[in-house]
Amino acid sequence: MNGFRAGPIAIVGCGLVGRAWAMVFARAGRQVRLYDANEALLQAAPGLLAEGLRDLEQSGLIESADAALARIVVAPNLKSALDGAVYIQESVFERTDVKREVFAAMDGLISPEAIIGSSSSGIPASEYTAGCACRARCLVAHPVNPPHVVPVVELVPAPWTTPETVAAVRTLMEEVGQVPVALTREIDGFLINRLQAVLLMEAWRLVEDGYATVEDIDRTISDGLGPRWSFMGPFETIDLNAPGGVADYARRLGPLYQRIASSCTEHRTWDEPLIAKVEHQRRQQLPADQLQQRSAWRDRRLMALALHKRERDAADAAAK
Amino acid sequence: MNGFRAGPIAIVGCGLVGRAWAMVFARAGRQVRLYDANEALLQAAPGLLAEGLRDLEQSGLIESADAALARIVVAPNLKSALDGAVYIQESVFERTDVKREVFAAMDGLISPEAIIGSSSSGIPASEYTAGCACRARCLVAHPVNPPHVVPVVELVPAPWTTPETVAAVRTLMEEVGQVPVALTREIDGFLINRLQAVLLMEAWRLVEDGYATVEDIDRTISDGLGPRWSFMGPFETIDLNAPGGVADYARRLGPLYQRIASSCTEHRTWDEPLIAKVEHQRRQQLPADQLQQRSAWRDRRLMALALHKRERDAADAAAK
Repeated sequence: MNGFRAGPIAIVGCGLVGRAWAMVFARAGRQVRLYDANEALLQAAPGLLAEGLRDLEQSGLIESADAALARIVVAPNLKSALDGAVYIQESVFERTDVKREVFAAMDGLISPEAIIGSSSSGIPASEYTAGCACRARCLVAHPVNPPHVVPVVELVPAPWTTPETVAAVRTLMEEVGQVPVALTREIDGFLINRLQAVLLMEAWRLVEDGYATVEDIDRTISDGLGPRWSFMGPFETIDLNAPGGVADYARRLGPLYQRIASSCTEHRTWDEPLIAKVEHQRRQQLPADQLQQRSAWRDRRLMALALHKRERDAADAAAK
Repeated sequence: MNGFRAGPIAIVGCGLVGRAWAMVFARAGRQVRLYDANEALLQAAPGLLAEGLRDLEQSGLIESADAALARIVVAPNLKSALDGAVYIQESVFERTDVKREVFAAMDGLISPEAIIGSSSSGIPASEYTAGCACRARCLVAHPVNPPHVVPVVELVPAPWTTPETVAAVRTLMEEVGQVPVALTREIDGFLINRLQAVLLMEAWRLVEDGYATVEDIDRTISDGLGPRWSFMGPFETIDLNAPGGVADYARRLGPLYQRIASSCTEHRTWDEPLIAKVEHQRRQQLPADQLQQRSAWRDRRLMALALHKRERDAADAAAK
């Protein structure tokens, strides 16, 4: 079979992440059903989705906000949301007992071939799908926030998830324009948070030990390493940084990197004095009452960057 | 004093990095003198600089390649290159004995207030400036390659470098449009390579342990974490990722990140079987004979991204 089965997509949990997923599927032409046990959140969703889709349209990332919005409906209850759905994106609150409860409820209601992906950013699927009859068709499908602007989705199978399930969700995510990456098995933090964690831990350590300011460490990334990483990964970066490619690079610089890594193994915690130090430096740069405004700025910049990348990719493809 | 002293800039060492520095200073309106003990390299420099500046002009990053090129002259010898120079960017081969020799030679020739910045990516200035009379005015000024496209420059003082020297080079770098970041003292790998090292070591570990492919780890960055990091650092990223800012974020997610970091402390080396595994996966994506072409693609993408960032920054500033 080429492509993911036709049929509606259900979004269970309509917070920020669930709504972003709704936009991802709807703009790609899929029918979307929303459900949330919180009635107020569910009723607020269409209005918020209209705003979000309008932002995408204004940024040039989609043709028509109205057309996408027309594909999204609010379901009166969980049963109705799941009825005939071929894929369910679970996006409820990140707590094991909450997820376990909603997976148990979905287990009795989904179609025999339906797949459930969880937006869980840290709790592996094995912790809340063990008792489900459908557990072979459950996995984590974790996005970077917000998924309608940042395309990566990491697919993390539980020990009982079938390879066909991972492959099918990979296909679906590609079809709707996301960038799926797959783990072979569960690990703390998956890929995204592990890579972010090691970088953050070193950044905090450098501030704690007084080597540099928060602002200068941020600039080291935003005006140094980050631009390359926004269109190439770390492996491709080093592959292009030595005449003989990655193996050449690894032999030249591996010993230095291993020495640096060995000097970072002492356990550190972010205790309150350290948190206060970082917080103080950030508030010098951005007062607390401007956090929300700056987050909106970040989303606009991410959308502009997404458009820039799309245009460059198209130009590169045309040049071939 | 506001601003860096007027006067010519000397570039000592005319390889890729030295030539990129020449473009940085010349396009900002500074007079530049080139010197290299390798006569062939020195004579080839103006032609290569003309090409490099034309690329910048075609990318829309500078007004006139010819105007910048007209500010660059080749010096007949080291003495003539340094005569009256207010700042020297040393960019010779990365080996302690080579750097020590060139610093000793420069020590007797520079003006009494001239400052020398070394492009050294890993060897701290204390290892080759200890015996110099001018050592208080020497430091590392390490760029990301290539500095005429990626603006960050990390300033690393030796124990004897005066704070005034660091402050003056910071001012100079800002004046010529680079983004200086300062360390308070020397540390293995400085900021850039430390942050890159911890991320690379974890990426290689995930491949070694079979969690994911090289390609999927690259996508996790290029389509996940990297876009945000191309215009915000890691601290600002997490500051905007919790309602109460960075302190709120640190209290919520610190324990997870510390647990992840603690699980990465086992020492790993990139041995030959692992290098072969990574090399094999990269060569599936990019044959060795296309490395050079892909590096040219990377530079074009970096220039396009630099222009995109400049335009967005200007639009943001105008909207205020």
